[in-house]
Amino acid sequence: MSTPFDRIRRFLDDQQPPTPCLVVDVDTAADRYRALAAAFGPATRIQYAVKANPEPAVLRALRAEGASFDVASPAEIDLCLAAGARADTLSYGNTVKKPSAIAMAHAAGVREFACEATDDLENIARHAPGAEVSVRLLVDPPASVTPFGRKFGCAPDEAAALLVRAAELGLDPAGISFHVGSQQLDPAAWDGAIALAAKVATDAAARGARPRRLNVGGGLGVSYTDQAPPVTAYAAALRSALHAHFPGEAPALVLEPGRAVVAEAGLIRCEAVLVTRKSAMDPHRWVYLDIGRYNGLAETENEAIAYRFEPVGEHTPDDGPVIIAGPTCDGDDVLYQRTPYRLPLSLRSGDRLDILAAGAYTASYSSVAFNGIEPLRTYCISGGRLISAE
Amino acid sequence: MSTPFDRIRRFLDDQQPPTPCLVVDVDTAADRYRALAAAFGPATRIQYAVKANPEPAVLRALRAEGASFDVASPAEIDLCLAAGARADTLSYGNTVKKPSAIAMAHAAGVREFACEATDDLENIARHAPGAEVSVRLLVDPPASVTPFGRKFGCAPDEAAALLVRAAELGLDPAGISFHVGSQQLDPAAWDGAIALAAKVATDAAARGARPRRLNVGGGLGVSYTDQAPPVTAYAAALRSALHAHFPGEAPALVLEPGRAVVAEAGLIRCEAVLVTRKSAMDPHRWVYLDIGRYNGLAETENEAIAYRFEPVGEHTPDDGPVIIAGPTCDGDDVLYQRTPYRLPLSLRSGDRLDILAAGAYTASYSSVAFNGIEPLRTYCISGGRLISAE
Repeated sequence: MSTPFDRIRRFLDDQQPPTPCLVVDVDTAADRYRALAAAFGPATRIQYAVKANPEPAVLRALRAEGASFDVASPAEIDLCLAAGARADTLSYGNTVKKPSAIAMAHAAGVREFACEATDDLENIARHAPGAEVSVRLLVDPPASVTPFGRKFGCAPDEAAALLVRAAELGLDPAGISFHVGSQQLDPAAWDGAIALAAKVATDAAARGARPRRLNVGGGLGVSYTDQAPPVTAYAAALRSALHAHFPGEAPALVLEPGRAVVAEAGLIRCEAVLVTRKSAMDPHRWVYLDIGRYNGLAETENEAIAYRFEPVGEHTPDDGPVIIAGPTCDGDDVLYQRTPYRLPLSLRSGDRLDILAAGAYTASYSSVAFNGIEPLRTYCISGGRLISAE
Repeated sequence: MSTPFDRIRRFLDDQQPPTPCLVVDVDTAADRYRALAAAFGPATRIQYAVKANPEPAVLRALRAEGASFDVASPAEIDLCLAAGARADTLSYGNTVKKPSAIAMAHAAGVREFACEATDDLENIARHAPGAEVSVRLLVDPPASVTPFGRKFGCAPDEAAALLVRAAELGLDPAGISFHVGSQQLDPAAWDGAIALAAKVATDAAARGARPRRLNVGGGLGVSYTDQAPPVTAYAAALRSALHAHFPGEAPALVLEPGRAVVAEAGLIRCEAVLVTRKSAMDPHRWVYLDIGRYNGLAETENEAIAYRFEPVGEHTPDDGPVIIAGPTCDGDDVLYQRTPYRLPLSLRSGDRLDILAAGAYTASYSSVAFNGIEPLRTYCISGGRLISAE
């Protein structure tokens, strides 16, 4: 069976671009979007989280599939519009924004803004009069692989008050939003948050503000070294939580996947620059790659995301334990020293490796030039052929 | 008394560039270099760690002072040469490098390479025949603020063997190097490492390879919220350790400061985009800045570097506890939630703050465009006037 990784590998083997590089198969991103849309049904609005991978070719492919977009900044608005997205399919999901950013978004035609604080709400009323507002709720979900902590959202009482205040300010108190943490492998994690949102909705409705949408964020997991549940399991769990906690008229569901759309569409090819032992007695080898935390693998911080590595070419079946590190002179640029990884004993300096499912939260996180190392290059393919290179 | 921060603030108040931005007073970087050179004396070679801040104006100012340079990649070699540095004042300090990088450095005239593994040594012999080699030793110093862990260096036996092998390969076994961790606030931290290096030097000399230089790395601390010892304290401690452990002819000292040269030359001006409480009962306010971990403050990871913040303009003397966070939609983009920070109760959304001693490891760490937020802009001033803007 042909997998997206096969198409990417064929491209890499043919073209041999310099490593490290990320190749994104935009057909796979479109496939994943379609699978989500099918699992959640036409009543669910799917807003792709642009931050996961803002490549123009990815945005164009998703726009063609009918996706909406979750944007974090004026620059992401520009990217989506340049990719042909209609402004009314964009949602300004960042609750931290300057008045100038709100005014820019409003002038561009963006109608919906996330909000979690009175100051921001008043800025929205001033610079985007009449806008739809989605109030972000602080929730306390089960742990995810990369949790949000308490950074975003406000307490339930505050959320209801903001919806009411939005209406008073002439804004449309359209929705409630929350996020249960990125790479959330437990489909039941949304249940408590949906219950809390239902309480806020009831409370706000009693005071005349009736949110009609429920934005349950992203967070759907993908398979790295761990196996993620299928999309259909998330859809079933969310549907059942919605029915349980909104026994009357349920709000329309909004989903903001990033990783679940684009991670499995990408593969990074890199090189083992150095394979060595610190001493003859060292039980494990240190494998230093030409990619690390500062040029694409930022999500290895605290070893959160454990990527799947596959050596390229022929190797012995025998393997041994390794510590995997990046190419900068920075002591923090070690990818995995606690997570047990094994690589072939035949691996040598100069050998190449593939990092699977690396399409999300990689290239856009790259540093501009830390240690003089350039940001991760991205090549986008469709139909197996190159359609863009940056 | 006029401080470098006063000159920077005068520039910022006059010019009002958009925030966030970093302003580097290159005169201060030159001053700090001169203070180091005076404290360590003319026999010590000072190689500025370019990665700390690779701004061309900084490199030019240091070159004019007679500095040498520690480079981590071909791109950093190009930057130094473009700033007018002679190739023989560059040392390739990264032990992780491709054969193509070694060949490029050799062709550019770079003579010295750090090394910690046989594969790399053989690559150096092949692509930079006759080069000077400095073997990096894995040391176990007292904790520093941002320690190196075990990423770099090899065991003492291996280090001695590499020096011997370098000579056999026609290379010059010129030195031993190590690093005791960045922002190392204990001047005595070098003592054990110098003792270990003396053992390696004796061992290698007995086998015919006599290293004549000892590269003690960087790591000298600067004052953020904590006070760092004066440069003279580091110089005294290092001199005394050198005399104690090399009772005969001591090797020439090489120092690779980055932070100690450029941190206090820089100040970041930023804006509090949002100041809010999660609920009415929340004892602390959340202050969301327009700068965070992904556009300049990478060293706040694990709250390692605790920067000094000073609000701009008039504020009440009353203050209260705050959690400080960055502008992206990322849950990890929280700067300080355990480190106790207090800011004026009068601080409002839209107010500006200065981040002091922010010239090192900030702009060059910025992500290319995470969340569509542009990398931190740098303005360099000299004599109080703008000399470069990027």
